[in-house]
Amino acid sequence: MITITTDFSSREHYAGVLKGVIKSYGDIDVVDITHDIDPFDILHGAYILLNIIGYFPPDTIHVMVIDPGVGTSRKGVLARLERGYFVGPNNGLLTFVRDMVRDIYEIIVPSDASRTFHGRDVFVPVAAKLAMGKWPENLKKISKDSIISLNIRPPQLVKNAIMATIIHIDSFGNVITNIPDNFVKFTPGEEIFLNYHGIHKCIFRETYGEGKEGELIMLINSENFLEISMNKGRASNFLKANKMDEIMIELP
Amino acid sequence: MITITTDFSSREHYAGVLKGVIKSYGDIDVVDITHDIDPFDILHGAYILLNIIGYFPPDTIHVMVIDPGVGTSRKGVLARLERGYFVGPNNGLLTFVRDMVRDIYEIIVPSDASRTFHGRDVFVPVAAKLAMGKWPENLKKISKDSIISLNIRPPQLVKNAIMATIIHIDSFGNVITNIPDNFVKFTPGEEIFLNYHGIHKCIFRETYGEGKEGELIMLINSENFLEISMNKGRASNFLKANKMDEIMIELP
Amino acid sequence: MITITTDFSSREHYAGVLKGVIKSYGDIDVVDITHDIDPFDILHGAYILLNIIGYFPPDTIHVMVIDPGVGTSRKGVLARLERGYFVGPNNGLLTFVRDMVRDIYEIIVPSDASRTFHGRDVFVPVAAKLAMGKWPENLKKISKDSIISLNIRPPQLVKNAIMATIIHIDSFGNVITNIPDNFVKFTPGEEIFLNYHGIHKCIFRETYGEGKEGELIMLINSENFLEISMNKGRASNFLKANKMDEIMIELP
Repeated sequence: MITITTDFSSREHYAGVLKGVIKSYGDIDVVDITHDIDPFDILHGAYILLNIIGYFPPDTIHVMVIDPGVGTSRKGVLARLERGYFVGPNNGLLTFVRDMVRDIYEIIVPSDASRTFHGRDVFVPVAAKLAMGKWPENLKKISKDSIISLNIRPPQLVKNAIMATIIHIDSFGNVITNIPDNFVKFTPGEEIFLNYHGIHKCIFRETYGEGKEGELIMLINSENFLEISMNKGRASNFLKANKMDEIMIELP
Repeated sequence: MITITTDFSSREHYAGVLKGVIKSYGDIDVVDITHDIDPFDILHGAYILLNIIGYFPPDTIHVMVIDPGVGTSRKGVLARLERGYFVGPNNGLLTFVRDMVRDIYEIIVPSDASRTFHGRDVFVPVAAKLAMGKWPENLKKISKDSIISLNIRPPQLVKNAIMATIIHIDSFGNVITNIPDNFVKFTPGEEIFLNYHGIHKCIFRETYGEGKEGELIMLINSENFLEISMNKGRASNFLKANKMDEIMIELP
Repeated sequence: MITITTDFSSREHYAGVLKGVIKSYGDIDVVDITHDIDPFDILHGAYILLNIIGYFPPDTIHVMVIDPGVGTSRKGVLARLERGYFVGPNNGLLTFVRDMVRDIYEIIVPSDASRTFHGRDVFVPVAAKLAMGKWPENLKKISKDSIISLNIRPPQLVKNAIMATIIHIDSFGNVITNIPDNFVKFTPGEEIFLNYHGIHKCIFRETYGEGKEGELIMLINSENFLEISMNKGRASNFLKANKMDEIMIELP
């Protein structure tokens, strides 16, 4: 099975073309993850990759085409992960799954490939061959040290506070931090102070619907990250939140 | 076969995760209906459910995750319908198909389910087991009286007028009422007066392209509801229409 | 295999209904191209059809429902192309593949079809029968001269300039002209002057990432048309570009 994640926009036919190319290789199951990533938003792709791998069958091939550097010196890669495969540009998409990479291969670009659409001419053919049970030709094993990562600091304890980074804002306006659930333990009902564009009192909750409407809450989301949310509201608007911003959470 | 309808946004990976979980159960055909329902718009989900059931194979399982109350006391249910199945929260999504429910079962939430993503951990596993031909465990039969319905009055004849409710506004700006086609008969070309944010003359038509550009028309739509439309325009903008508003249609 | 392209909006269930109808005919593979074409934007559909045909298996059936004239005198057609089939309204969608049409058939509308949703009641049944290996009934062979085309002038050399038309603006803001790659040869790095809402210097490039950020570039896109683009910017906004506008490119 192949999943596809791109910034092509679901309004365009480019993702359809990828599916046509895949289906031309054989009866391969294709699952669209999303094609509505903001143009060039590699961080969003990296966050998605981390969060889908565990829920797909173990031999699933995840193709991601968020590729502002297509046709330049950036390399395309096939990475064999602990679970499944990644095919796409080596431009930061592997940031959060770096430690799950077992082997990584540079994909040698065929001479007849378009300079502007490697999704169609390079990545999807590699994925489709793999899905059909063949090891793709034109691969060159490279070192795991070659993996490009986005520059995001892991969360840090500084005195009595956690410094962390906003890694995603979802369509409900939930503000997702890079603090994993095992980094800190809060108790339901506990008051926590968030220092980000002002000081905000949040209540730690176990689910969205528990808070009062409009109340700022923190919870561990379904992907095990600490998330700032607002019951039936948009925490991201309230906080004027931006991805990649640093936030400070004061411990009680 | 399983259909999925959510308010997750097609920009996010959450719907992709549902598909991954389903595919992990076996080779099950999955059809996306939409993931772009406005957050928490249960009425839209209810309207969709009514309108898709008849067009899918009779044993199709319709999963709907529009679930503002996830993790609270609201119950998840499996409903066996006259045609197909519904799996999702019991929060109004069954409003328009209440009479088609044969049996309904509360889904007992597994203890290891996330508090915030029952779509992934509760609903889709039930649907996938059913699609694989197994009757899911952890079901408790409940009374049909337990079905939660949205508070929408059926259309009513009041003197020489119909009082009705706007139940959907589609992406073309068509304003769809809850008046079924057998409730009233109009003749093509007939003038009808709509009392809603002012008095508006509409012409009854059989199809969109018949009216003059910008003319307000009424027609019976493809789902057999009376609809207010504007040829190559947006009736919803012109009327400043809102879902759940009551309208009055004066009979000739 | 069937592809579906519509202007129904991915927010609505109408495309889901098409898929339900198809699946009711048998185990047919369905690929969504897009459902987010601007309402009634036939040109976008025509551009998509041209660009997907070559990438799908040769017997793929492409259903397109961008159909402002549904239920009026406009005809629905099945066209057998050099590669694959087209099913949809004869309203300009075949503009760019006119020369690839081998035979074309008017689809006689069944008497029980809705007047407003031929996608569901007319086009998809024809496509599904064809996909199941049956030749659909109710077809009437018509002349290729009946094909409706949009009124777009082919690119023309006028003195030392090319007059051309903007046929698409994609979600990255790329401005795509109807100049095919064999119409003119530029050299990477060459300066080209574009006369459209002012005079603009463009640099001819081979791929997007080569230019400086914000630089206006021209390139041959992956579909072999001359395209005006801006590295990490939106050429369409900068140029205030509109589809169907004529532009002039001054040759060196």
